[in-house]
Amino acid sequence: MVQPLRLGLAGLGTVGIGVVKIVQRHADLITARTGRPVTITAVSARDRTKNRDADLSGYAWEVDPVALARRDDVDVFVEVMGGHEGAAKAATEAALAAGKDVVTANKALLAHHGQALAEMAEAAGRVIRFEAAVAGGIPVIKALTEGLAGNRIKRVMGVMNGTCNYILTRMQNAGLPYETVFEEARQLGYLEADPTLDVGGIDAGHKLSLLASIAFGTKVAFNHVELEGIGNVSIEDINLADEMGYHIKLLGVAQISGRGLEQRMTPCLVPADSPFGQLQGGTNMVMLEGDSVGQIVLRGPGAGEGPTASAVMADVLDIARGLRLPTFGQPASTLAEATPARSATPAPYYLRMTLLDKPGALAKIATCLGEAGISIDQMRQINQPGEEDDDAIVIFVTHKAAPADIDHAMTRFGNTGVLVDTPVAIRIEEI
Amino acid sequence: MVQPLRLGLAGLGTVGIGVVKIVQRHADLITARTGRPVTITAVSARDRTKNRDADLSGYAWEVDPVALARRDDVDVFVEVMGGHEGAAKAATEAALAAGKDVVTANKALLAHHGQALAEMAEAAGRVIRFEAAVAGGIPVIKALTEGLAGNRIKRVMGVMNGTCNYILTRMQNAGLPYETVFEEARQLGYLEADPTLDVGGIDAGHKLSLLASIAFGTKVAFNHVELEGIGNVSIEDINLADEMGYHIKLLGVAQISGRGLEQRMTPCLVPADSPFGQLQGGTNMVMLEGDSVGQIVLRGPGAGEGPTASAVMADVLDIARGLRLPTFGQPASTLAEATPARSATPAPYYLRMTLLDKPGALAKIATCLGEAGISIDQMRQINQPGEEDDDAIVIFVTHKAAPADIDHAMTRFGNTGVLVDTPVAIRIEEI
Repeated sequence: MVQPLRLGLAGLGTVGIGVVKIVQRHADLITARTGRPVTITAVSARDRTKNRDADLSGYAWEVDPVALARRDDVDVFVEVMGGHEGAAKAATEAALAAGKDVVTANKALLAHHGQALAEMAEAAGRVIRFEAAVAGGIPVIKALTEGLAGNRIKRVMGVMNGTCNYILTRMQNAGLPYETVFEEARQLGYLEADPTLDVGGIDAGHKLSLLASIAFGTKVAFNHVELEGIGNVSIEDINLADEMGYHIKLLGVAQISGRGLEQRMTPCLVPADSPFGQLQGGTNMVMLEGDSVGQIVLRGPGAGEGPTASAVMADVLDIARGLRLPTFGQPASTLAEATPARSATPAPYYLRMTLLDKPGALAKIATCLGEAGISIDQMRQINQPGEEDDDAIVIFVTHKAAPADIDHAMTRFGNTGVLVDTPVAIRIEEI
Repeated sequence: MVQPLRLGLAGLGTVGIGVVKIVQRHADLITARTGRPVTITAVSARDRTKNRDADLSGYAWEVDPVALARRDDVDVFVEVMGGHEGAAKAATEAALAAGKDVVTANKALLAHHGQALAEMAEAAGRVIRFEAAVAGGIPVIKALTEGLAGNRIKRVMGVMNGTCNYILTRMQNAGLPYETVFEEARQLGYLEADPTLDVGGIDAGHKLSLLASIAFGTKVAFNHVELEGIGNVSIEDINLADEMGYHIKLLGVAQISGRGLEQRMTPCLVPADSPFGQLQGGTNMVMLEGDSVGQIVLRGPGAGEGPTASAVMADVLDIARGLRLPTFGQPASTLAEATPARSATPAPYYLRMTLLDKPGALAKIATCLGEAGISIDQMRQINQPGEEDDDAIVIFVTHKAAPADIDHAMTRFGNTGVLVDTPVAIRIEEI
């Protein structure tokens, strides 16, 4: 008789209940596929009295997730509580110390403590798996760690926060300003309790830093991700970009070069007809580029009960099947300390500014660009309908320029005395 | 000192040389990721004197791949020769009998003999891995077998023959007839020696049958795939479909229901703005639909040295890392014998026919449709520019109809006496 693989499930929110449902509904399927039953021994959540959409009567209840993590009748500690300090961290450490494998959906925990936890797991001969932490139901950790293992990874790109993509596509489709759609998203329950995790790009930045570690064999360096959220993306820019054939996305890019590791999660213009440009609503997309395979694009639901639980169960089934890999694809001790490189990869930029109606205003701006070594691909002057004064909105699309040169030009613009408001610069990723 | 994993490589065509290059170029990367070196001990190909784009001087040469498969200094037999009988089959069997694991890119071999080979491998405690056999560089076997293992799979769809997709998109983009583009493809070296493997849909059908086995836990049943190639897709239909917002793709669909296992690889109309509709050239795309995860779409290069070798190496690295799964994701002995079900899932259909210029001709056709229980969503009459006579081309897009009802109507059309030529019916997949 094969021993079942016994789960201790910490967290009974959407994802936790999704896991319970799969374990209960697909017992036969799971046994057929792994050769052993997968069972839940015990669960833990803050509020035992809450009405939940699953039958939990067969499971022991632990008030304290640390106690759950240490139970003798638990083989795998499944952490779907969230939060990068406190109970989630303590319980994960307790599980590893007690010789349990860990499956987690917690990107924040790994982005902040991934190296230490990976070292702890490997010293204990245990594994930490986190498919659910990145891009929801898309098996992107597996694709990168295993499916593309024969490649030197050149670049990873992704739209990995469904809430941000929902807000940006809703702004575009309905012509609504950011504040209105943000409020809609809040009322629909799409936002984290602390919404800056979503709209500040932090959640997506966590995910990018985990992918970068696997891709480049480097220690997780979330603190070096260049982060810019979507709070400053205006409906004007969305509309103007659209007219020029671009959509605005919160896009993550990680790549490594002689200068070091570049990681950024920022709003970008992408071609409207590109796979990223066409991504609507809460769907996620990741592009993995390897030296042999070229570009692999994966698309799927980035959140929700079913998709996230599917990813958690993929990890559980891997453990049941005996697959044991180091957390980030190679032993934690061999991961390099990457030099952070501020993005220096040249790209075209979209620049928008409002100029005073003064003779020579445009010439002054063009001079700043020229002196910064930036050449102009397209320029458009927009007539503001219904505006009283004659201030002119001007849009530039530059040829490829180094980010530092764009910064330089932006500073110079401020000294010209012809700007009505703060100019906007958004990178264009021609994927 | 960790023992290296020693490969015996049978086949030194494009893919084989790609494997050699990765093993040589990425020795350090591979060792870092798997914890052990991967080496090539011996190789085999028909012509030893041929000039190849790789240094093979360090490898033993075997004229006979069976002898290669049996060598004591080979741990994994890598079969990239192709062909579903003869040497590839004999050598694969010899490798399993000699206690070697097998990595193969050979979809034909597995489509015809997958069940027997899987049983042989499992009896010997060996694994057969075949990521490279389906959709080139896309890690779709891994995504389905492992990444979505917690799901009951509802449906698998895919554009999995790059040559067919090249021909169809080239016809559309250049407005050229099938015969012209087929000849171009032949001259570009895109076609198999036996082109019906590509354009007859056989190669893509092989791939679909392998995905279906994993997805539904059924024995590979290539002989029950409904196959229709692209040889009858006319430039007229491509253009007319385009005007209505559809592109024509050679699309595979596999799904299971109470009636049995439905597998078809046929030309279909798909919405032009859908992911499948936008797929250009030799790129492949697979959609996996699970009960928890929803729809996951994977896109990438479907062939070529780098992508296919990347997939072969993913399997090799899995073996080096100790991952051992049954060939089709569950023990071969537990795979069910699926009842083949001719596709009965209703769908809208595109119908094209040329009618004689006779009073009541259209009414007769409409009557046939009505009597077959098929209702019409759109109807268009096309004026043929420059035609002498007044025969009318008529296009129907039906509401959802059962395939049997469409067949029934098509038969009835023939009895009306108003058709100038054979009518065309193409299924529409609204993805």
